[in-house]
Amino acid sequence: MTAPLPAVGESPESLVRHLAEAGRAAQRVLARLDSPAKARALHAAAAALREAEAAILAANVRDVAAGEARGLSGAMLDRLRLDAGRLAGIADAVDQVADLADPVGAVIDESTRPNGMTLARVRVPIGLIGIVYESRPNVTADAAALCLRSGNAALLRGGSEAVHSNRAIHAALVLGLEAEGIPAAAIQLVPTQDREVVGAMLTAAGLIDMIVPRGGKSLVARVQADARVPVLAHLDGICHTYIHAAAAPDKAAAIALNAKMRRTGICGAMETLLLDAQFPASQAVVAGLLDAGCELRGDARACALDARIVPAAANDWDTEYLDAILSVAVVDGIDAALDHIARHSSHHTDAIVTEDAATAERFLTEVDSAIVMHNASTQFADGGEFGLGAEIGIATGRLHARGPVALEGLTTYKWQVRGSGQTRP
Amino acid sequence: MTAPLPAVGESPESLVRHLAEAGRAAQRVLARLDSPAKARALHAAAAALREAEAAILAANVRDVAAGEARGLSGAMLDRLRLDAGRLAGIADAVDQVADLADPVGAVIDESTRPNGMTLARVRVPIGLIGIVYESRPNVTADAAALCLRSGNAALLRGGSEAVHSNRAIHAALVLGLEAEGIPAAAIQLVPTQDREVVGAMLTAAGLIDMIVPRGGKSLVARVQADARVPVLAHLDGICHTYIHAAAAPDKAAAIALNAKMRRTGICGAMETLLLDAQFPASQAVVAGLLDAGCELRGDARACALDARIVPAAANDWDTEYLDAILSVAVVDGIDAALDHIARHSSHHTDAIVTEDAATAERFLTEVDSAIVMHNASTQFADGGEFGLGAEIGIATGRLHARGPVALEGLTTYKWQVRGSGQTRP
Repeated sequence: MTAPLPAVGESPESLVRHLAEAGRAAQRVLARLDSPAKARALHAAAAALREAEAAILAANVRDVAAGEARGLSGAMLDRLRLDAGRLAGIADAVDQVADLADPVGAVIDESTRPNGMTLARVRVPIGLIGIVYESRPNVTADAAALCLRSGNAALLRGGSEAVHSNRAIHAALVLGLEAEGIPAAAIQLVPTQDREVVGAMLTAAGLIDMIVPRGGKSLVARVQADARVPVLAHLDGICHTYIHAAAAPDKAAAIALNAKMRRTGICGAMETLLLDAQFPASQAVVAGLLDAGCELRGDARACALDARIVPAAANDWDTEYLDAILSVAVVDGIDAALDHIARHSSHHTDAIVTEDAATAERFLTEVDSAIVMHNASTQFADGGEFGLGAEIGIATGRLHARGPVALEGLTTYKWQVRGSGQTRP
Repeated sequence: MTAPLPAVGESPESLVRHLAEAGRAAQRVLARLDSPAKARALHAAAAALREAEAAILAANVRDVAAGEARGLSGAMLDRLRLDAGRLAGIADAVDQVADLADPVGAVIDESTRPNGMTLARVRVPIGLIGIVYESRPNVTADAAALCLRSGNAALLRGGSEAVHSNRAIHAALVLGLEAEGIPAAAIQLVPTQDREVVGAMLTAAGLIDMIVPRGGKSLVARVQADARVPVLAHLDGICHTYIHAAAAPDKAAAIALNAKMRRTGICGAMETLLLDAQFPASQAVVAGLLDAGCELRGDARACALDARIVPAAANDWDTEYLDAILSVAVVDGIDAALDHIARHSSHHTDAIVTEDAATAERFLTEVDSAIVMHNASTQFADGGEFGLGAEIGIATGRLHARGPVALEGLTTYKWQVRGSGQTRP
């Protein structure tokens, strides 16, 4: 069972149908495998990645050279570039996913009815997951491993910049999987870079069960706008930290600095700081950020805290900078903070710093975001930091899975009913 | 806070936006209520329904008279008609939902990270639920009660046939809720029967969090085709019962008869019977169904079992009869049964009858349906029968909630992180 090649002149819809049907057939094989069999297959795939090092790095050299010729930015070339160390990291990550606990078959809950029937909700794979991503070739292995560990088939569509790298990584993965008896169509790479195939994937309801976009905001926005298949994603990470009047000044300064400046380009980075008007150490908090090289854009009361703060424009409160820039507002108490967050949060991660337990609990209860934090840096918003072992993404939608999503979020459940001849009265 | 009236000439999109914004604001109030407060409000709503009996029944008389004048079928008029007993049943059902355990605030799981942060996944309401339904006025109260018990606001859009009944029921509900301090916009009834408003609801992503269609197949198909908001529904209930070679003949006959004939019009009714070629008592099973007045449409081998069985056409295997009609095939063993079900099931409910435990477990594991059963009638596919106390619907989608959906399926979760000043290294 191998992935079909596109026929000459085949339409994008027809190609996606053929790929999806092959993937779904392979998924039925995966669904029957026990946990050790899936782990063995992933360890074999990791070993195959290491054995294919020369081929993968050679393919990557072609992609990087083409990217340089096309004038890709330094940041894009860095995301694209592999070396022996990075490839070893990719293989190690596949080994780590192989060793994660398998959620499939776990019993969520059980009950016995008065008539003696037993009911159990049991975790099962979702089915066929479509992954649409950009220039990071590591996604090819990461996403494939998470899908396979949870019994799902994957249909991968990577960016054109990484086409040779992705093909080489995919070929190695499949070699390892097939050696352990897994059908090649369990992990398929779309065999063309035709952009219309992405559109056909997004509308393949009934064929693809879920789409996970991995990449920048424009990719996610396009996927969310066009998809008829459910999408697991976040568009923005407009994360807030609210320093309450009863915050410990040292904690507040350290958390604010870390939440913004540890890495400014990740989705869990703070983008807006809310300082309570009654918090006595706001000047020290903003000075710490300014001294670290962060540009601060404030409302009128924030600007009064430090001459280096520039006035914020109205759209600053809705902007994900992903850079050393921060909007800062002074608010009057928890109600004003909750109101600001309700209006401007992207429902990703929002935090409060306070020593007042009741106010903290109110914040954790009332802020309607996937992740709410007390006295911690928003930069912890990450599947690894949450102990999930990995993540396929962070979701800000309201259904199915929210926040960091790893193996459990790649499963659904079925009801198993065991009777002894019961009929319904 | 009351539901806005549509301005003259207001577009459907603008009306839905205004209704949704009012509903979302009211939902933030609901999200802060504790379980007893929500229960009190629903008991007050149930009492208000009883007090408004005269007004509701008078409104219903108008709807039924209009329906008769329009020539509605007897079945439709029966779904529409209320009397004192049916209305009492509607009020009782609201009281019962009030007494169900509140899922909001339940902790799904907790962990402590090595750095001392604690993580808890806590159930929260989904937000604003849109309910699109047809001629049954009881849905107005049922759906509203389930949404409110789980902390969600509801935007109800009932069928034109029941418009006066729905308005009277809605007015009584809101009177009861407001007496307990719940904002009226927590449960809104769309104040116009303009069909374009349904389209605007289905595409109101970001304003309405989930749509639940309640009605016939054409309604569900339209909602699934047009919606950009996630939909909780099932389109078909093409439920199978497979009688394995090792089935106990008496159980097989009783389960088959009950699964088809107890009520033929419900989604959990069996539509296809698969008889193993090695099962020795197939003639008795089909005779029981035929004697009970069921039309049987069989493949060639099934037709040979009884002269009263007529030949099935190809599309019979994909037809939900919702009537005293059944398609019957003879299959060679569990693999052929699994293959037939994989090709024709609507993934609602499928059952096996056998005394062989290993074969039963294989069926329960490999059949990819929301509900899989061993030695029980598919007619048990129901939230009440599953001990959920009620149901907002049965879902055959793969994400979020599957099978009978009650209060838990109307919640999502957030991650609450409690720290003591942690910053990410």
